[in-house]
Amino acid sequence: MTEFAAVILAAGKGTRMKSDLHKVLHPIAGRSMLHHLMASVDELGPSKTVVIVGHGREQIEAAVAGRATTALQEPQLGTGHAVQQAQAALSGFSGDVIMLYGDVPFVRPATMRTMLERLHAEDAPASVVLAFRATDPGAYGRVIAGEGGTVARMVEFKDASAEERACDLCNSGMMAVRAEDLWSLLSRIGNDNAAGEYYLPDVVMTAAADGRKSAYVETDEAEVRGINSRAELAAAEAQWQDFKRTEAMDNGASLRAPETVFFSWDTELGRDVTVEQNVVFAPGVTVADGARIRAFSHLEGATVGEGCEVGPYARLRPGAVMEKGAKVGNFVEMKKAVLGEGAKANHLTYLGDAEVGPGANIGAGTITCNYDGYFKHKTVIGPRAFIGSNSALVAPVRIGADAIVAAGSAVTRDVGDGELRLVRAEQLVKPGWADRFHDAMKKKKAAQREKGG
Amino acid sequence: MTEFAAVILAAGKGTRMKSDLHKVLHPIAGRSMLHHLMASVDELGPSKTVVIVGHGREQIEAAVAGRATTALQEPQLGTGHAVQQAQAALSGFSGDVIMLYGDVPFVRPATMRTMLERLHAEDAPASVVLAFRATDPGAYGRVIAGEGGTVARMVEFKDASAEERACDLCNSGMMAVRAEDLWSLLSRIGNDNAAGEYYLPDVVMTAAADGRKSAYVETDEAEVRGINSRAELAAAEAQWQDFKRTEAMDNGASLRAPETVFFSWDTELGRDVTVEQNVVFAPGVTVADGARIRAFSHLEGATVGEGCEVGPYARLRPGAVMEKGAKVGNFVEMKKAVLGEGAKANHLTYLGDAEVGPGANIGAGTITCNYDGYFKHKTVIGPRAFIGSNSALVAPVRIGADAIVAAGSAVTRDVGDGELRLVRAEQLVKPGWADRFHDAMKKKKAAQREKGG
Amino acid sequence: MTEFAAVILAAGKGTRMKSDLHKVLHPIAGRSMLHHLMASVDELGPSKTVVIVGHGREQIEAAVAGRATTALQEPQLGTGHAVQQAQAALSGFSGDVIMLYGDVPFVRPATMRTMLERLHAEDAPASVVLAFRATDPGAYGRVIAGEGGTVARMVEFKDASAEERACDLCNSGMMAVRAEDLWSLLSRIGNDNAAGEYYLPDVVMTAAADGRKSAYVETDEAEVRGINSRAELAAAEAQWQDFKRTEAMDNGASLRAPETVFFSWDTELGRDVTVEQNVVFAPGVTVADGARIRAFSHLEGATVGEGCEVGPYARLRPGAVMEKGAKVGNFVEMKKAVLGEGAKANHLTYLGDAEVGPGANIGAGTITCNYDGYFKHKTVIGPRAFIGSNSALVAPVRIGADAIVAAGSAVTRDVGDGELRLVRAEQLVKPGWADRFHDAMKKKKAAQREKGG
Repeated sequence: MTEFAAVILAAGKGTRMKSDLHKVLHPIAGRSMLHHLMASVDELGPSKTVVIVGHGREQIEAAVAGRATTALQEPQLGTGHAVQQAQAALSGFSGDVIMLYGDVPFVRPATMRTMLERLHAEDAPASVVLAFRATDPGAYGRVIAGEGGTVARMVEFKDASAEERACDLCNSGMMAVRAEDLWSLLSRIGNDNAAGEYYLPDVVMTAAADGRKSAYVETDEAEVRGINSRAELAAAEAQWQDFKRTEAMDNGASLRAPETVFFSWDTELGRDVTVEQNVVFAPGVTVADGARIRAFSHLEGATVGEGCEVGPYARLRPGAVMEKGAKVGNFVEMKKAVLGEGAKANHLTYLGDAEVGPGANIGAGTITCNYDGYFKHKTVIGPRAFIGSNSALVAPVRIGADAIVAAGSAVTRDVGDGELRLVRAEQLVKPGWADRFHDAMKKKKAAQREKGG
Repeated sequence: MTEFAAVILAAGKGTRMKSDLHKVLHPIAGRSMLHHLMASVDELGPSKTVVIVGHGREQIEAAVAGRATTALQEPQLGTGHAVQQAQAALSGFSGDVIMLYGDVPFVRPATMRTMLERLHAEDAPASVVLAFRATDPGAYGRVIAGEGGTVARMVEFKDASAEERACDLCNSGMMAVRAEDLWSLLSRIGNDNAAGEYYLPDVVMTAAADGRKSAYVETDEAEVRGINSRAELAAAEAQWQDFKRTEAMDNGASLRAPETVFFSWDTELGRDVTVEQNVVFAPGVTVADGARIRAFSHLEGATVGEGCEVGPYARLRPGAVMEKGAKVGNFVEMKKAVLGEGAKANHLTYLGDAEVGPGANIGAGTITCNYDGYFKHKTVIGPRAFIGSNSALVAPVRIGADAIVAAGSAVTRDVGDGELRLVRAEQLVKPGWADRFHDAMKKKKAAQREKGG
Repeated sequence: MTEFAAVILAAGKGTRMKSDLHKVLHPIAGRSMLHHLMASVDELGPSKTVVIVGHGREQIEAAVAGRATTALQEPQLGTGHAVQQAQAALSGFSGDVIMLYGDVPFVRPATMRTMLERLHAEDAPASVVLAFRATDPGAYGRVIAGEGGTVARMVEFKDASAEERACDLCNSGMMAVRAEDLWSLLSRIGNDNAAGEYYLPDVVMTAAADGRKSAYVETDEAEVRGINSRAELAAAEAQWQDFKRTEAMDNGASLRAPETVFFSWDTELGRDVTVEQNVVFAPGVTVADGARIRAFSHLEGATVGEGCEVGPYARLRPGAVMEKGAKVGNFVEMKKAVLGEGAKANHLTYLGDAEVGPGANIGAGTITCNYDGYFKHKTVIGPRAFIGSNSALVAPVRIGADAIVAAGSAVTRDVGDGELRLVRAEQLVKPGWADRFHDAMKKKKAAQREKGG
């Protein structure tokens, strides 16, 4: 493959999304459409990626900063005009240019590679068009095939003859053209159409007028499907999830009810991992071999070690690290916290900004008080320590190895190794008090009822 | 449209539901079938609605009290006989009568309107029948169409000729008739059939015997589908949810996995609302623009302000109000509680009968103790107050503006503005105690194991 | 039906599962494939069940201990060879033998019975083959039917003529043969094939060579579908769940969204039970009439009484027993705990190793501290007792009838009937402290920001 640059069109308004967020920034599997596409481009090692921006440009610029150049299209006079805006950013670049759309996020690297390679085939086409067979070609522009994978003609649906309309090979709008050809051809396409726009595909007929053939590469319809509404976004997400679920099972994970498990683009599951019903993997999660993710769990930015058990109803937030065999149970939240080998936090607990040593046992209802309203502080719990239920560990605080904190304690000072810390007031007993209280309240209730009636 | 009254049949037993709850009171999207239907009727402004009751009449009477009249059908001698029971309740009423079924809840107001208007068309039919094209007409009664949308003949399936059976236009059983015609016609239909019942559709042939034509209005099958079993109830619910999900997305909400989001009949979502996986909206929920409802949340009777974040695992119960930018996190329950602008309750908290000021921070594990076993009491938390983790606020109690409650405190008396409240016993330290305890317990365990073996 | 024994083949490697767990031990609806099959066999009362083991034999031996005999197949020379390994275990047994596969778990008892009865029909076949009509017969071996339900011929796909391949009656591999015939026939089948294996179905042609006919019993394809991958496992689970959901609704339970409710093989629901969205029933759950299981609940080994309310977000673990009208609310966990009639634990609570009397009220955030790191201890709460919010009950401990524990108490000693127990330190008030703290912290933040910038 020769050197190439990618131009990604993302200037459109995306009206049908009805959103303040730019269309191409809407996420699928926890990553924006645009970043899905850029990641695919990156797999092929582009010399440069130029994103054409217009509506909501600030959002796109922020989103691609450091990964791509942007070029402004204003006003917006069609796809051909959009690509032209990349010329300055690509000045001096003499390789190939592939043109993609930010709202068509799932074009595969292999397809892009095929397009770029086709450009350098023996017949040296002026451009390569990405075409697809449509189940229902409708109003798509048609690609009329010539010999040897060349394009005989490109026709807009409205200009197509009945015979041409019967053809189901459609134009996806994506193209590859050598840089030197591209700028020359684009400078000569016209805007003599109803919308007064410059259309990128006109490159093909402009080259033809020069006596140069174009070629096409064919792919399947699903790959080039654009996303224009939230319903289409949801459908794309569903399709992605199905693919990922099957892949996870093929790789040796058991999904009890695959349709209820939601992955992110970067979720990694080991072998013999079991995932029960209703589990959400937000981005950044790695699960090692033999771990069990129980029902109703939510993981994000978390590392789950070998043989760990998570949930049901566990929430692992970014920075949660469970070492081998650790257990996190129901209604437990971890954030920036390490749970050492074999340590347990089984019930109703919040572990934030904490380090828990191996074999420690965190009782039900334990809270690490990591925030004072201004700063976050750290809790360190030693190996094999036992934190009694309903304790509050007021950080910064350190609990020693083998130490015990008695149930219901609010611990504000460090506890030494092997020490017992007991924070507990006197037990006041008032015999008969409850009985008198019940009597009084019952009378009050009765009085209220009488008044109410 | 002329004045009209609705008669809704709901006297049947609904045996196939196998339920003590009357069939028409089973809910779809959080509202009973009967109330779905009555709401549609109400959109057209009926003069009166009469519900015919029989089996389980007390339940229906309680359910429609104040919104409709009921009339008892006892014994139950067929649909014609059922409608006749409404005559007393409609005495003096001279408009149109539309007859509907409590277990056919999704007839649209537009369809009802079309039926009523058809009654007053130029050809002035004696009755208007609601018909539908059945995919599989099976044993439905057939409507044999005459000219100009009139009914040539109505035939029960068992009496139909082969030619008539080939017709796929079926009788839904729903009708519209002028009051004056209705009582007269009903008084003349017979019960000369196997079941010995008076059938409402016989009105058509009785009118025909008088030389008067009837007409039909055609609708689609889904609209007139009756619900007779829990499986049919679930299917109707699923159909309703799909419709609502698509509508929500079309209106500018993002549903990550639409099939896992469950709405109620009255759920209102703003623009750019994000709803993650597995969210249940019980009745009475409004969500403002830009809010984010995270996975595994359950909302009922709640108002979520602009840009709020809810969940994951948040439960908002009736009376929960979140003001602009407020946050409710995991394992948090709110009931009759207001969370002021930008206030946060992020973890493991119960806020009941409470008012939380803007910018306040409710620490993990905070509980408002609102119930003394007899009465509910209120907790008021001032602006920017900071409630330390694992605190119990024993209501009635008031925490001042900018006040701080130390972690682990059980607060029983008011805290002033800018005050610190610390309820904490002495920290007792017993060095070496834990080590000795571990030794003793390990010995005991070993002894037990020996005995056990 | 005459006496019979079952031979279940489970020696294979199950490579496609990519699992350390033996393929036939992977669960569907909370029970392993092998145990599903054995339970079906047991319904017919076998004289003996012999499971043929090989790969991962220790796992299988442990799983069937006490319920079946195992016989080792090593090396593994085909299905015929596998069955031969059962001969010693069945020595002296002279009834019928039915041969099944551990990874084909859903063969119905009725089908097995039909096979065994067919063996004793008037034409006394030498063997009975379980056949099925395949939608896509592909490479299955074909059963060429003779007269009167006999087998004219069995052909491997690769040896089949075009005419034979057109036949859609396929061989499931399952068979029934009289013991005396079986050992004799098996001793004479050969391994003259590409794999060098002894195939069980060769019994048919070996018998034919003796001039004895075999017969076939036909069933549907779904029943004989084998499970070879995690995707097939998930598909079988989904099929099972759908069946069970429909059954539950037919029996009078309302499932709001049936596709989100997951049952186990032994779940029992009463009449008029409502199950909301996203509920998981792990094994061992019984729910009585009129109970309501709310959204996001997880039940395992639990008994839910008449009219109880569970959830949302309730987790009932093994040994949880709710008596009539009891309520367990959100973020509440019960384990080995009894909640008496009408008792309530509505919020953020852990009840482990506990007995709660009728009418008791367990406040939000209550924790039974049942574990000291070595042993579990019991909490007993009397009738109508009121446990204030955020209390820790340090077991072993006993709370009397009508007793009250004040909010935020850590109770370590028994509380008598009608007594009030208050464990609370002095309330320290520091007026102005919070204001000074806010000022100091704001300065510190500002200083940090300056440094950071």
